[in-house]
Amino acid sequence: MQRLGPWSREAWTVLALHLLRSSRSPNTGGLFFHCVQGGLVQSSAREFAEARMKTQLELNKEKSSFVIKTPKGTRDLSPQQMAIREKILNAVINCFKCHGAKGIDTPVFELKEILTEKYGEESRLIYELKDQGGELLALRYDLTVPFARYLAMNKIKKMKRYHVGKVWRRESPSIIQGRYREFCQCDFDIAGQFDPMIPDAECLKIIHEILSTLQLGDFLIKVNDRRVVDGMFAVCGVPDNKFRFICASVDKLGKMSWKDVRQEMTGKIGLTPDVADQIGDYIQQCGGVSLVEQLLQDPKLSQNKQALEGLKDLKLLFEYLTLFGIAEKISFDLSLARGLDYYTGVIYEAVLLQSPTQQGEEALGVGSVAAGGRYDGLVGMFDPKGRKVPCVGLSIGVERIFSIVEQRMEVGPLIRATKKIQTTETQVLVATAQKNFLRERMKLIAELWDAGIRAEMLYKKNPSFLTQLHYCEETGIPLVAIIGEQELKDGVIKLRSVASRKEVDIKREDIVTEIQRRMSES
Amino acid sequence: MQRLGPWSREAWTVLALHLLRSSRSPNTGGLFFHCVQGGLVQSSAREFAEARMKTQLELNKEKSSFVIKTPKGTRDLSPQQMAIREKILNAVINCFKCHGAKGIDTPVFELKEILTEKYGEESRLIYELKDQGGELLALRYDLTVPFARYLAMNKIKKMKRYHVGKVWRRESPSIIQGRYREFCQCDFDIAGQFDPMIPDAECLKIIHEILSTLQLGDFLIKVNDRRVVDGMFAVCGVPDNKFRFICASVDKLGKMSWKDVRQEMTGKIGLTPDVADQIGDYIQQCGGVSLVEQLLQDPKLSQNKQALEGLKDLKLLFEYLTLFGIAEKISFDLSLARGLDYYTGVIYEAVLLQSPTQQGEEALGVGSVAAGGRYDGLVGMFDPKGRKVPCVGLSIGVERIFSIVEQRMEVGPLIRATKKIQTTETQVLVATAQKNFLRERMKLIAELWDAGIRAEMLYKKNPSFLTQLHYCEETGIPLVAIIGEQELKDGVIKLRSVASRKEVDIKREDIVTEIQRRMSES
Repeated sequence: MQRLGPWSREAWTVLALHLLRSSRSPNTGGLFFHCVQGGLVQSSAREFAEARMKTQLELNKEKSSFVIKTPKGTRDLSPQQMAIREKILNAVINCFKCHGAKGIDTPVFELKEILTEKYGEESRLIYELKDQGGELLALRYDLTVPFARYLAMNKIKKMKRYHVGKVWRRESPSIIQGRYREFCQCDFDIAGQFDPMIPDAECLKIIHEILSTLQLGDFLIKVNDRRVVDGMFAVCGVPDNKFRFICASVDKLGKMSWKDVRQEMTGKIGLTPDVADQIGDYIQQCGGVSLVEQLLQDPKLSQNKQALEGLKDLKLLFEYLTLFGIAEKISFDLSLARGLDYYTGVIYEAVLLQSPTQQGEEALGVGSVAAGGRYDGLVGMFDPKGRKVPCVGLSIGVERIFSIVEQRMEVGPLIRATKKIQTTETQVLVATAQKNFLRERMKLIAELWDAGIRAEMLYKKNPSFLTQLHYCEETGIPLVAIIGEQELKDGVIKLRSVASRKEVDIKREDIVTEIQRRMSES
Repeated sequence: MQRLGPWSREAWTVLALHLLRSSRSPNTGGLFFHCVQGGLVQSSAREFAEARMKTQLELNKEKSSFVIKTPKGTRDLSPQQMAIREKILNAVINCFKCHGAKGIDTPVFELKEILTEKYGEESRLIYELKDQGGELLALRYDLTVPFARYLAMNKIKKMKRYHVGKVWRRESPSIIQGRYREFCQCDFDIAGQFDPMIPDAECLKIIHEILSTLQLGDFLIKVNDRRVVDGMFAVCGVPDNKFRFICASVDKLGKMSWKDVRQEMTGKIGLTPDVADQIGDYIQQCGGVSLVEQLLQDPKLSQNKQALEGLKDLKLLFEYLTLFGIAEKISFDLSLARGLDYYTGVIYEAVLLQSPTQQGEEALGVGSVAAGGRYDGLVGMFDPKGRKVPCVGLSIGVERIFSIVEQRMEVGPLIRATKKIQTTETQVLVATAQKNFLRERMKLIAELWDAGIRAEMLYKKNPSFLTQLHYCEETGIPLVAIIGEQELKDGVIKLRSVASRKEVDIKREDIVTEIQRRMSES
């Protein structure tokens, strides 16, 4: 046996698959190969056959112990969760429409090349599809890059659009923080060449409106500018090739202490302690427009062209935010860096502030519930001639918002007791108290359905009357339309209110109108 | 040079990648390897370096000729398409809710094993994800298997649910027929042990309601039973191991002539001509309940236990469909086979009938717009103890419906002229006729947004008044709220109707109420 390794894990996987599938090993002149942990083994035919059988047995073993579940980091949504989601998504979409946005949709996967070199360090989190003999594909990582691709492909120079859809990231899932590998994003973006900071201010206004409408508690929107970040790194003496790593490091401030962030900068990334400390002096500052003005006077930063432009724009932005009446919720925060490669100007991130009274929610953590920024170069990356379309946008972290609302509904004893989450909207149950009335129930319910009334019946030939009433109570159906021998003879339907237990006979031809009347009253 | 191939394409891809990424080739004792077409080559260090450079150049070449597009068989949806979709989906979901269904959602991908052995011949169309060092995953092929997995995983014995979501199939895309590799499905299913044919009849009623509501023209719902299909194959003498292939063949009748289907059966699949002709005699029949009764007397078919059960259930089904008032649109069609492995009872498929007057639509083709059936064994396949939950359901082929409606809107000259598809819902544009009024526009629009009014403004410091009016006409905004020096002095806003060009001054404090009043009137 001659050992030929070590190779990468990928190469081994494919070789193992190949060996399993082929009836014989890949061979030349009677040589056989098979895989053992960490190496390719040149083997005899018998050795190969044994190795193959062993692999097959292991595969079978895996299969029999197969546990039924959703993929790691993903989950199903129950009718209760869907009902909550529907309300939240409707509020978010309504706000986007309020600002004149149009909806679009894009495929969930893109050509792999479209996603390459857009996300910096986070590219490794992209899900790729298997090469099944066609194009190389990958699941979208966000809705921003597909939007930029859409604009470039259709040569659109100006557009205000929203997009609600799922995105996928191979992150370590943290269910307690409401972080999943599959999650929903709600994006709003403004593309086009406009006067500075007007669309940018509108994006912040939208975040403010949505977080206010959803009543999630107090929040803060951190704002910075990518040019200020880069300028700051430059004047502190960070080498160009380390910007990306330092960016990611800076983003951790808040989750980690400055001491630990500094450790990372001087350790793994290899900054000198002096450079790290200069960065530290900047990024530990946050404030309002006065901090912007102070930094405009900063002897080092004001000498950097990029930083100066960023600071001037931030000053204008604060003026517009004051006109929109939302400046008090905005914090200029030099530690906000946003690691994605495509940002070029203003960046922002909204966080919920933990209110001290809601201690039951502490376990959920806070963190970002909305984020975004300006990306003026992304569309140009897709255009064959590099023509740029400036863009600014935002993404609502609805998944975290869902978690918060769901947890409140579970925790909040008042809400729980008084208001069960309604998952169906059925208005009336077609029922009978007698045997052999299936056919009559069917005729009646078809009349109701045809009139657009939300109706159900039990799928039993002869259900007990009590079972039918219980079903109404369980599922919150308010009315029962009862048919029996007497009703049939009299040409009426008995209409019963589940809550009051009152029953009245309604003429068959008036039943639709009567149900509609009762529903419009309630 | 010692040649070690041939290996599979997959193995080569991974090896090539590995060689590219590693600064040296995988080697033992100074041996180098590199890839040439069809073989692994043991090479010198120089040979390896040359091969590596060549591969790199080829990769670069590929990159520069890269065309920006969506993946094969997929597409973006424009705001116009999204507006049409929203209306259709709302109608479909409304009907599902009318029948008491709850919404759920599942991840777009499942563990690969979940999807294996559920779709028969069509399994090869499943998209798999790349093995990135975790679970093996695949994109869902339909919403039925994920629903069955959901029921089994949560031990749910009874549920009426709907699910709207995308599914993926690696089919040859046919854009002209509205067939894509990524498409939306709208499913409704009833799970639980009930009296025979009651939920089945409701599924057909729902298909009937949706197709009637959407006014797509005349349609027909073909019905059959999987037990009748299997019984028919058995009495005709089809060998067990050929059922699956014959099923797929039979499904082609309608798209292909009987002569061609027979050719396939006796050729590729290898039936004797006699067996094929016996099948032919059955599957060329269709009709109403009288055909069911006739086949109940069929000397061969009535001797087959399975077929007999199927026919008896179909007879009951027709009775219920008559009670629901929809029997006239139902055709018992022996050529309907539905190739998917999981069906066990009643199966159905709705097709649009080409009306002779709408010849402009001919190119679009007709085909299935809804389908479904009973699958009593699927949930049991996921339960560790094999416990069954009988299910019946339907899937609306909304994608084809979207295509039809889109084409009608393009073709229909009346609709086109009178009714432009509205993609935004903006009610008012905040405008000015003077310079330096950006700040005042911003203050005013924030007031409107905060009151929930759908408002836009142009993102220019000093847009011309004409440009602002043009924008309203282009996008269908009905009102303009104008602010200028005089208005500011008088404490009013000038409200202009775009259609009538009439302008009136409204007190600033009344502007919200006035816009709301006008919008509720229109």
